[in-house]
Amino acid sequence: MSTKRSRKRIRRSKTDQPKWLQKPFQLMRSPIAPTEWCSPDQLDKIHDASMRILENIGIDFMEEEALRLWEAAGAKVDHSSQHVWIDRGLLLDLVAKAPAQFTWHARNSANNLIVGGNYLNFCPNSGMPYVSDLDSGRRISTLKDFENFVKMAHAVPYFQFTGGPLCEPQDIRNSLRHLYRIRIMAHETDRAIRDTASGRIIAQDTVDMMQIMHGGQLPGCVTGGVVNVNSPLRYDNRMLGGMITHARNGQCSLITPFIMAGAMSPVTMASALAQQNAEVLAGIALTQLINPGSPVVYGGFSQNVDMRSGAPAFGGPEGAWALIVAAQLARRYNLPFRGSGSLTNSKVPDAQAAYETMWTMWPAVMAHTNVVLHGVGWLEGGLVASYEKFVIDAENVAMFAHWLGNFEVSEEAFALDMIEQVGSGGHHFGTDHTQARYETAFYEPLVSDRLGFDAWESAGGEDAYVRANRLWKQILASHEKPPLDEGIAEALDAFVERRERELEGIDLFH
Amino acid sequence: MSTKRSRKRIRRSKTDQPKWLQKPFQLMRSPIAPTEWCSPDQLDKIHDASMRILENIGIDFMEEEALRLWEAAGAKVDHSSQHVWIDRGLLLDLVAKAPAQFTWHARNSANNLIVGGNYLNFCPNSGMPYVSDLDSGRRISTLKDFENFVKMAHAVPYFQFTGGPLCEPQDIRNSLRHLYRIRIMAHETDRAIRDTASGRIIAQDTVDMMQIMHGGQLPGCVTGGVVNVNSPLRYDNRMLGGMITHARNGQCSLITPFIMAGAMSPVTMASALAQQNAEVLAGIALTQLINPGSPVVYGGFSQNVDMRSGAPAFGGPEGAWALIVAAQLARRYNLPFRGSGSLTNSKVPDAQAAYETMWTMWPAVMAHTNVVLHGVGWLEGGLVASYEKFVIDAENVAMFAHWLGNFEVSEEAFALDMIEQVGSGGHHFGTDHTQARYETAFYEPLVSDRLGFDAWESAGGEDAYVRANRLWKQILASHEKPPLDEGIAEALDAFVERRERELEGIDLFH
Repeated sequence: MSTKRSRKRIRRSKTDQPKWLQKPFQLMRSPIAPTEWCSPDQLDKIHDASMRILENIGIDFMEEEALRLWEAAGAKVDHSSQHVWIDRGLLLDLVAKAPAQFTWHARNSANNLIVGGNYLNFCPNSGMPYVSDLDSGRRISTLKDFENFVKMAHAVPYFQFTGGPLCEPQDIRNSLRHLYRIRIMAHETDRAIRDTASGRIIAQDTVDMMQIMHGGQLPGCVTGGVVNVNSPLRYDNRMLGGMITHARNGQCSLITPFIMAGAMSPVTMASALAQQNAEVLAGIALTQLINPGSPVVYGGFSQNVDMRSGAPAFGGPEGAWALIVAAQLARRYNLPFRGSGSLTNSKVPDAQAAYETMWTMWPAVMAHTNVVLHGVGWLEGGLVASYEKFVIDAENVAMFAHWLGNFEVSEEAFALDMIEQVGSGGHHFGTDHTQARYETAFYEPLVSDRLGFDAWESAGGEDAYVRANRLWKQILASHEKPPLDEGIAEALDAFVERRERELEGIDLFH
Repeated sequence: MSTKRSRKRIRRSKTDQPKWLQKPFQLMRSPIAPTEWCSPDQLDKIHDASMRILENIGIDFMEEEALRLWEAAGAKVDHSSQHVWIDRGLLLDLVAKAPAQFTWHARNSANNLIVGGNYLNFCPNSGMPYVSDLDSGRRISTLKDFENFVKMAHAVPYFQFTGGPLCEPQDIRNSLRHLYRIRIMAHETDRAIRDTASGRIIAQDTVDMMQIMHGGQLPGCVTGGVVNVNSPLRYDNRMLGGMITHARNGQCSLITPFIMAGAMSPVTMASALAQQNAEVLAGIALTQLINPGSPVVYGGFSQNVDMRSGAPAFGGPEGAWALIVAAQLARRYNLPFRGSGSLTNSKVPDAQAAYETMWTMWPAVMAHTNVVLHGVGWLEGGLVASYEKFVIDAENVAMFAHWLGNFEVSEEAFALDMIEQVGSGGHHFGTDHTQARYETAFYEPLVSDRLGFDAWESAGGEDAYVRANRLWKQILASHEKPPLDEGIAEALDAFVERRERELEGIDLFH
């Protein structure tokens, strides 16, 4: 592989873009204490319940290497049922080996992230089999959609992660999608990315391609995958394969049961959280058995089942509890936390979509969610990535970036001399202080319309959905390809071609 | 006035109403600590800046009785400019006399409220000159609209306040509106209400009518008005007249500057908050000069000016800071806090309307806002009360009521025996625990649609706006008149008739 780096920067003028897009990329940190829902005593009770689950009820690990590792570590293992019982002493010793904070390396090291502490890292949409936009409606997602979403994520400076399995390119064979996705991410973004943990082969391909992208050597954690637990209490073969492969390579697992309380756990959220805690910690402990100190993230995605439709209920009070309490539990074990951002059951980017998203994004921010997966774009419980909702949600991510980063208390900010100068009943429009600061003082929105009724009506009377339709095209057009070494691009092409040949006729999801 | 009470209860069956409407009315309390944005040191700095404003720059009180009271208390007063300078010692001694918590009495004492501590009290819309609904669009509001909103507020069990100047009945002469509004509130609701503080005459009429409603004697605080400061640093004659009249009668002032940073204060939010703090505390101190111990609320309504449109920017990061920090300041002085709920600049109940509302309601809840004014219904920066947005926002108030009140951590909730019984890979739909609890376990939404795409499309493919249009009619039809003593009703009629005669040809807003 060539190591020559041709850093030809093709930079268009940014002055024709909205100011909203011109902000520099930056990390997001919360300046305030995380919200605590449970008292320490309640948290102890949830912890204790989850320990009793692992000690007395146990959990399935449906993969032989995982079972051997547990057995060697001293857990009680039943190979015929693939069931494991784990004492809390063993479990907590292993969990304590996981790092509280780690760096997630981007292809451009200026865009490296920190996962842990009070850092919030927003990701775009993830995993959608369908996409929709106002022009062409709802349809299956394609590789072109995937590329569009990567470009849009890279054009928006508020995402810390810009890549991942943003949607499922259904025009590409299942077993090859990761290759195409990763190559597109390499070309269209140089911020932090990831792909899936769907078995050993895909995970190893991902690691290999990332290694090429990083010039032949992994600088540390550069990728990872979401490991969903098949709740209740079961890790399946494919997820374990991905997790073992990632951990062995020093890459990250975001271990996330998907529990619908009332279906995959008892009907109370406290029970769902105790079971989730048992499931997550068992997985985290396994990563530390495989590779002590390897990066891993405590994931929470518990919701309730909607009793009328049988569907998961996204963006409601139950999910907000689950998010905040799970983040508390993660902090209890000194682990980074993964939550979500844009969850909703709505079929269109309407008021329901927006308030359900806020019922996820607000608690996520208040809880110091270190990795905010599904940060934007959700509709229909995650089945659809909406181009318009991407923009509407990104506006809210941008608002949080401004909110968390820009509150200033100082004599200069108080400007008491200006208050004296203006006096009672006057106004501050023309003061030196206002004139010096007005262009940057406030968050300047992209989607939100603040015109009066008549001006708004004269301008077409568009609602947020229609405005977002225009805006996503503007964002997509604003995308600028980051420089990519030609040798790396060629090596990635060669890798993809080789693996296409090798995987011909093979179904990795069989 | 007759004291006979004819408690004829006309109760229709509630079984045909959605469960959402059948919940009992209850007080709302937050089980978690309020969010703190500023460090104690930052809060001290804001406090100190506001003290310097009152000591060195001063504030207008454009009303002779107020100036005389300040002079007698030892403040420096300039009668010609109606300007007052207040030392922090004098100010804080007076502020300390205000109650940290008080009861707001409803006509039905079962519906009394507590204002202060960790109690949250949601109010409907307030003060709108226009209304809109999907059927007839945007139009001036009338007395019929006012009556509709009172009925809808009373039909929804999640409002602690159900009355107030919910909209401006423009078909009634300005100077008589309060009389008509209060009579309608007496007939259509028996929860906590209020009207305006627009001068001495209206405030005294309000108190007199409330006294009639309460059987001839005021049980304590039963009404109050929002006192807006004409920022910067000016209390006008009308607001002071209302405030003095309410305080003298032991009624509440919700003292609320309306500051747009960059227009009525310097352009930074820290400065807006320091100025707001100076303005509010000066007003609170005056209420305690008038009537020590009388109920009063610290109000926050600061936003920024939108630099593109010149309009106030509602539902953004600046307003969220202002809300949380103002609540911190109120707690610093042991005062109850008033914030807002449904603020938005949007012209329609779309995604923008919903997320801007959430950018106000979430911080309001997290900050322990004791009186959440404008809890529902806003569009267009408060110019329009939307019937559909009323319902959409009320859904969110209901979600918060569920969220704050229903998280349970107990052995019974954990149901570890069920987790054991179901084991790995099973499901919990049919367990005894699920069957016993599923009907009440989760928040059951009214507006939110959780159907799959096909089912939703077959059912008409309605967005939240269209569903809310159907729902507000259902809510309005669900309204049940609470019992009202016939003698009281007659006495109110007599009062209104007398005041109509006495106010003939008089313009109280001249």
